[in-house]
Amino acid sequence: MNSEKVEIFDTTLRDGEQVPGCKLNTEQKLIIAEKLDELGVDVIEAGFPISSPGDFHSVSEISKLVKNAKVCGLTRANQKDIDTAAEALKYAKRPRIHTGIGTSDSHIRYKFNSNREDIIERAVQAVKYAKTFVEDVEFYAEDAGRTDNDYLAKVCEAVIKAGATVLNIPDTTGYCLPEEYGAKIKYLKENVKGIDKAVLSCHCHNDLGMATANSISGVINGARQIECTINGLGERAGNTALEEVVMILRQHPHLQLHTDVQSKMLNPMSILVSELMGMPVQPNKAIVGANAFAHSSGIHQDGVIKNRETYEIIDPEEVGVSSSSIVLTARSGRSALAYRFKHIGFDVTKNELDFLYQEFLKVADRKKEVNNDDLSLIIENVTRKIG
Amino acid sequence: MNSEKVEIFDTTLRDGEQVPGCKLNTEQKLIIAEKLDELGVDVIEAGFPISSPGDFHSVSEISKLVKNAKVCGLTRANQKDIDTAAEALKYAKRPRIHTGIGTSDSHIRYKFNSNREDIIERAVQAVKYAKTFVEDVEFYAEDAGRTDNDYLAKVCEAVIKAGATVLNIPDTTGYCLPEEYGAKIKYLKENVKGIDKAVLSCHCHNDLGMATANSISGVINGARQIECTINGLGERAGNTALEEVVMILRQHPHLQLHTDVQSKMLNPMSILVSELMGMPVQPNKAIVGANAFAHSSGIHQDGVIKNRETYEIIDPEEVGVSSSSIVLTARSGRSALAYRFKHIGFDVTKNELDFLYQEFLKVADRKKEVNNDDLSLIIENVTRKIG
Repeated sequence: MNSEKVEIFDTTLRDGEQVPGCKLNTEQKLIIAEKLDELGVDVIEAGFPISSPGDFHSVSEISKLVKNAKVCGLTRANQKDIDTAAEALKYAKRPRIHTGIGTSDSHIRYKFNSNREDIIERAVQAVKYAKTFVEDVEFYAEDAGRTDNDYLAKVCEAVIKAGATVLNIPDTTGYCLPEEYGAKIKYLKENVKGIDKAVLSCHCHNDLGMATANSISGVINGARQIECTINGLGERAGNTALEEVVMILRQHPHLQLHTDVQSKMLNPMSILVSELMGMPVQPNKAIVGANAFAHSSGIHQDGVIKNRETYEIIDPEEVGVSSSSIVLTARSGRSALAYRFKHIGFDVTKNELDFLYQEFLKVADRKKEVNNDDLSLIIENVTRKIG
Repeated sequence: MNSEKVEIFDTTLRDGEQVPGCKLNTEQKLIIAEKLDELGVDVIEAGFPISSPGDFHSVSEISKLVKNAKVCGLTRANQKDIDTAAEALKYAKRPRIHTGIGTSDSHIRYKFNSNREDIIERAVQAVKYAKTFVEDVEFYAEDAGRTDNDYLAKVCEAVIKAGATVLNIPDTTGYCLPEEYGAKIKYLKENVKGIDKAVLSCHCHNDLGMATANSISGVINGARQIECTINGLGERAGNTALEEVVMILRQHPHLQLHTDVQSKMLNPMSILVSELMGMPVQPNKAIVGANAFAHSSGIHQDGVIKNRETYEIIDPEEVGVSSSSIVLTARSGRSALAYRFKHIGFDVTKNELDFLYQEFLKVADRKKEVNNDDLSLIIENVTRKIG
C-alpha cells in the first residue's frame, strides 16, 4: 500500500498546559512525556522555555528523558527566546526549535505595530539564528488562517530559504471552514518555491468546533504534520484532539495516510492527562469520552446485539477500551433486556419477557439507569406475581 | 442580503435524553422545551412516544406547552409506533411525525433481515400512514452515511411521492468526512426527482469528532435543516452541537445562510441543560466551555489587551458570556500582569513591573492560577524589599 506518513506533533505540554487550571509540575510533565514517547508521537512540544524558570527546567528534563520523539521548544522571533530554548534543549537527542511571528494584518498592525516587509525580515533572522543551534527549525506564521495567501506564500518562501524544515500554518482563532483551510494548504503546496524542502503543518484551534475537520482537510491537501493535544486541550476551546485525527486516518484507509501512534494507548493516555491536569473529559467526547462506546436506545441496542458494526465503526479495544457497554434505561428495548438477563444468568422466554419488560419500564421511568440488582428484583417480583 | 434560512431541529429531548445518565422527568423536559422555544429553534423533537409511558406523557405535555416551534415525535416504520406518536402529538399547534428505517446494506441485512425493495415499500407505507394524522412528515434513512447514493436517491424519491416533507440523511455511525457527507447531499439535491418538494436535513454523529463540520458541509451543499442538541449531547460521542452550527453560520456571512436562534441565550441554555441532565461540559468545549473565552498565555494575553480581535472572533456577549477573562498563570506575560495590577488599583511603572514580574513568576510556578489576593501580597512584599 502506498500510504504516506503524517507526523504527529503533540503540544499537550505546551499549548495544552498553558490553559487556566492545567498547570503541571516538572515531575508530572515527565510522566506524560515518557508516555507520549511510548504512544509513538513524532514530536513532543515540551514547553516555552523563556516563559518561566519552571518551564525552562521542564523542557530541559524532558530533553534528557525522551528516547525517540523529537523534543521541541517554543520561542518568539527574537534572539533571547531562541538562546533560552537552545539551552533548554541541549540534552535532546533530536532537538527542534519552534519560532515564528504573526503574519495577518491584524497581528502585524495591532500586535507588532509593524509592516509586511519588516515581519518577513524578522522571520528570516529568527530562523537563521535558530539554525545556528539546531538543524531542525519549525516556523509558525501566527494567525495564518486570516493571512492572505499571496503574502503567506512569500513568508514561507523566505523562511524555507533561511533553513526552516517545517512550516506551521495555524488557524490561530479557530475561524476557518475545512474547505478554506484545505484550500490554503493547497495554495501553499502549489505556489511556494522550494516547498518540497519543508513539511507543511496544521495547527488548528477549536473555537467553532472544527479543529479536527480542518486538520484532516489540511493533510488531504498536502500537509504532513498535525499539531494536536490529548483530549483536545489548549487555549480557549482547545486544539485539534490527537485521538480524533489518529482514528480518522485509521478508519479512512482510502486517504492513504497513516500515523505511527499506538491506538490502544489512546484511552489510557486520555485518562492520565485528564487526571494529572484535573481537566475533565465530557462523556460525549469523541473516542475517549465515557459514553463514546455506550449504547442506550432500544433501536441501537438491538442493532449492536445483532451485529456490532451496525452502529459502531471502531472496535473499542482498538483504542484501549475493554468492551462497548449496553446501558439499560427507559429507552432500551426488549432485546437489550433479554441480553442482559441472559448475561446475569436468566434465560427468559418470549412470554416471560413481555411481563418483565413492563416491570422494567416502570423501574426505568423512575431511575436513570437500571442495574443488575434492579433486574434481579424485577425477576423476583414478577415470579411472585406469576407464581 | 440574499441569505437563506437553515432550520434548527433540536433533539436534546430525544437523541440527547436517551443517553446513559441524561434521563429527565417530565417537569424538567417542560422547562427545557419552553426555553428551546424562546431560543428560536424551528423544531423540538420531544421524544419517542412508544418507547415508554413516561416518554409518551412528556411528548404530550410538551405538545400542549410549546407556542412557536414544531413539536416532533420519533417512530419506527410501523403503525403502532405512528399511532402512539400521533396520539402524543394531538395537542401540538404544529405537529411533526418523524418516521423512518435503516437503508444501508448492513442495516437491511442484519437489523431487518430484509431486502432493498421491501425496505422502500415499508418506508412508503409508514410515510403514507403518518400523513393520515399530520401534514408534516419527516422521513429518516437510518445509516444513510453508509448507504450507496443511487439506492438512497430511490428511497428519497419514493417517500417524497408518498408525502414526506423533510428527508433526514443521518450519518448514524459518525463515519463520514465533511467532503463525503457534503457530496452525498449534493448528489441527492441533483438526482432525486421532486427534491424541491422536500427539505434535506443533516443528522450527524460525532464519533470521529466531525459532526459539526459534516452538518456545515451538508448545508453548503443544499440541505436546509440541521438536527442538533445543546452541548452536542447524544448517543455515544453525541450529535452536532447546536451552539457550534449557529455560531459558524453567524461568523461566516459569505455562506449566505442563517438561523433564527437567539445567540445570546446559547450560554444560559448550555448551563440549564448541563445542570438538569447532570452532564458536564468540558472546559475546552467550543462556544459554551468555561475556557472558551479565557486567555492565559502571555503572547495571547498581550494581543487581546491590545485589540480583542487579535485572538477572538466571537464577542463573548454575543453568546451570553459577560466578558472574556484574562487568567494569570506562569505562562502570562508582563502586559497581562500590568493590566491586572491596573485593574485592582495599582498603576505600576516599567521598572516596578520588572521586579513584580519576577516575584509573580515564582508564585505562578507554585500555583495553577494567581488571583488578586496573591497580587496584593506580591505588591506588599516587593514594596517592602525595595523600600
